[in-house]
Amino acid sequence: MQHFRNVQDVPDIQALVDLAFACKQDPRHLHGLGTGKTLGMVMLNPSTRTRISTQLAARHLGMEVVVFNADKDGWALEFGEDVIMNGTTVEHIREAAPVFGAYFDVLGLRSFPALQDAAADQSESILQQFVRYSGVPVVSLESATLHPLQSLADLMTIQALFQEKRKPRIALSWAPHMKPLPHCVANSFAQWITAWGGADFVIAHPEAYALDPAYTAGAEIVHDQQKALQGADFVYVKNWSATEPYGTMPCSDPSWMLHLDRLDITNNAHVMHCLPVRRNLELGADILDSTHSVVVQQASNRVWAAQAVLSQLLN
Amino acid sequence: MQHFRNVQDVPDIQALVDLAFACKQDPRHLHGLGTGKTLGMVMLNPSTRTRISTQLAARHLGMEVVVFNADKDGWALEFGEDVIMNGTTVEHIREAAPVFGAYFDVLGLRSFPALQDAAADQSESILQQFVRYSGVPVVSLESATLHPLQSLADLMTIQALFQEKRKPRIALSWAPHMKPLPHCVANSFAQWITAWGGADFVIAHPEAYALDPAYTAGAEIVHDQQKALQGADFVYVKNWSATEPYGTMPCSDPSWMLHLDRLDITNNAHVMHCLPVRRNLELGADILDSTHSVVVQQASNRVWAAQAVLSQLLN
Amino acid sequence: MQHFRNVQDVPDIQALVDLAFACKQDPRHLHGLGTGKTLGMVMLNPSTRTRISTQLAARHLGMEVVVFNADKDGWALEFGEDVIMNGTTVEHIREAAPVFGAYFDVLGLRSFPALQDAAADQSESILQQFVRYSGVPVVSLESATLHPLQSLADLMTIQALFQEKRKPRIALSWAPHMKPLPHCVANSFAQWITAWGGADFVIAHPEAYALDPAYTAGAEIVHDQQKALQGADFVYVKNWSATEPYGTMPCSDPSWMLHLDRLDITNNAHVMHCLPVRRNLELGADILDSTHSVVVQQASNRVWAAQAVLSQLLN
Repeated sequence: MQHFRNVQDVPDIQALVDLAFACKQDPRHLHGLGTGKTLGMVMLNPSTRTRISTQLAARHLGMEVVVFNADKDGWALEFGEDVIMNGTTVEHIREAAPVFGAYFDVLGLRSFPALQDAAADQSESILQQFVRYSGVPVVSLESATLHPLQSLADLMTIQALFQEKRKPRIALSWAPHMKPLPHCVANSFAQWITAWGGADFVIAHPEAYALDPAYTAGAEIVHDQQKALQGADFVYVKNWSATEPYGTMPCSDPSWMLHLDRLDITNNAHVMHCLPVRRNLELGADILDSTHSVVVQQASNRVWAAQAVLSQLLN
Repeated sequence: MQHFRNVQDVPDIQALVDLAFACKQDPRHLHGLGTGKTLGMVMLNPSTRTRISTQLAARHLGMEVVVFNADKDGWALEFGEDVIMNGTTVEHIREAAPVFGAYFDVLGLRSFPALQDAAADQSESILQQFVRYSGVPVVSLESATLHPLQSLADLMTIQALFQEKRKPRIALSWAPHMKPLPHCVANSFAQWITAWGGADFVIAHPEAYALDPAYTAGAEIVHDQQKALQGADFVYVKNWSATEPYGTMPCSDPSWMLHLDRLDITNNAHVMHCLPVRRNLELGADILDSTHSVVVQQASNRVWAAQAVLSQLLN
Repeated sequence: MQHFRNVQDVPDIQALVDLAFACKQDPRHLHGLGTGKTLGMVMLNPSTRTRISTQLAARHLGMEVVVFNADKDGWALEFGEDVIMNGTTVEHIREAAPVFGAYFDVLGLRSFPALQDAAADQSESILQQFVRYSGVPVVSLESATLHPLQSLADLMTIQALFQEKRKPRIALSWAPHMKPLPHCVANSFAQWITAWGGADFVIAHPEAYALDPAYTAGAEIVHDQQKALQGADFVYVKNWSATEPYGTMPCSDPSWMLHLDRLDITNNAHVMHCLPVRRNLELGADILDSTHSVVVQQASNRVWAAQAVLSQLLN
């Protein structure tokens, strides 16, 4: 594995999940693989779970870690081609990326979308410029359109909790929010679940919130939440902003928020969320405080997902 | 020791002080106890000494350390019960704490009081929610009402400097300031000195600045600074805000600020302060620049205090 | 070497450069020298390369590293003598420095000039107070007037790229910018190149931009950029603010910005810059994207320069 930007970078999804379970079984699995190697985590945006879990994972492998809050500790970065840098940006990616590449053996990058222009975000130009100019393996710590470390941890969580012979039924259900959010977690979850192929997968969202078909091909898509919940073994709750028009929030219908009684029609579903979650706005506290919630397990699995991915990038 | 929030969490004060001295004697004392263990330091407020000394202490034990500036690196936390999270807070403690508990073996928490409502601060609800929901040992890095790592270092400092057979006379003297400060250091010092019981202890402050009797029981309390200084072996200088009304600053009488000549009536006293200290506002520079000042020793002892405490939480 | 503030602290420049090359050859050179020792990096200003390269260097030696963003993580520092601290500063250097000295074996300090008063900046009072009050070896991570870790890396870069018997011709050429910048990199480069003595050294800048003669003695100084470029083996491009009046920007003539065709009269020069560089404002992107540019090598050599310096401070 050369980089880790999306599921297509992964040669064998199940092998990677299995490796993550091996790390969970023994945190010192592959310890020493990272000796003398350094992970640089370049954070252009805030992060809690991704930041901490990836640090822990790298240390498990014996890597050094340098976290660089690029927005606070250093200089504002410029990504435009052929610009005259007489504005607020101080350093161009074409200098910054090779310098990071000189310092680090593996480069992590956290970079949110602007949500202004769908094509711009879909180009993943910031992440791709880090790949292009750094010269070292790059691991996405969430990019403009995807969040693959989250999805790998989500898939671990599903496999750990569901061990029947049949395929689980998984519903990804849009939730209300007060401000327009990126599509990363939803896109990425859809991409991984469909690529994995081990589930019956349904996505429910209001009109205007269609995810990019590049990620959802193979999933059933409905606008009736009840229909998605019916018989679900897992319900992944997540808000994302509209795609028509892109980055807006035409609907924030609170009836899309799940409460405990709405789970009656599920198959005693496990409820997932990537966190942070706004209680009683995205998801009822009654669910979060119940045994339906597996959000802490998901967060906990982030460590082993990152450890598996870093180990592959070190190889 | 399950948690370290206040002196009541400590089974044997003198044993803990002695352990801190053993760490000072040999920084590698108990090294290896922390191997494979991680300390997470969740900082909701700024910190210099506590931040650095606790990091160093954890490394002495062989622990990994992750410092998380929750206010800057991550998301604003919500602590209210049953709220609809449609405001500025992004993540609830009921998700955040168990996630931290999943990532870390010991959790440090820095959280200042709001100084708006005495009962709210005294409830220590933020610290207690971290204890309740994280599921791991919690060490206070200063909370709403107390600062026990400071007090343990203070007690070390006193014992190192005073080796006569009689009890030392210790005065805690209120000092002027320009803005209302928490009561934590003063409360905590009073709590530890009275619990220790090895000193004649007097507290001097203007009317309206009475500390919570829960912490000062056993101390002599006076409003005449001269009386407190008389014969003192140690003078602990500290500002705190009024308690009547709570969190205000009805008196900022500059005559409460100590200068060198005011020490004449002491027993050649050692002058203590937790730092940071505002020179010539809280305490005269002439004292700070004299051999009376032991503020650097106090700060230095913070390392060994933290090392002793962490070692007990690891056991 | 007791401290590392400028070239005068270095007993033997070439020996230090050679040591840096030895570290580059083997990153684990002198590993173990730092075992049980801690580097504290006190950052009063932003930093990318210095921050990361110094961390990496310290870890190569086996040192622990604590990075302390003093402006964000802690309290605003006061440097004035005899002040009444009733303003925005919370802690005085006379307490902070000895506390850092108690915590750390080596102290790094990053502190930019105010560019208000030449004499004040030239006094290097912040750096010197850290030296005076901390009691431990201090390494400049860029101070008010100099940036010696950068210059050592620059000298390595020159020596690695130029191996003819004759002296290289080195031009330091002022470049336009949109805001007044410190003189540190230019001063320091001039100081190191003249002290080294191994080059024909010319400095080109517009009138009013004369560097301090304390650093440039021995260099040829011209106001005609063409004259400086003629036959140059290396061109170091850098903006700095005027000295008459100090800290202003009377000229920002864009014709001082180099483009590729301007290098025709050089000896196929290597083009240097300390980074960050504003493309097409300070330096043409056509040069930065060409093989003339050695800016990434310079940045990369920062690690080995810091490793050599730290090793000498540990001795």
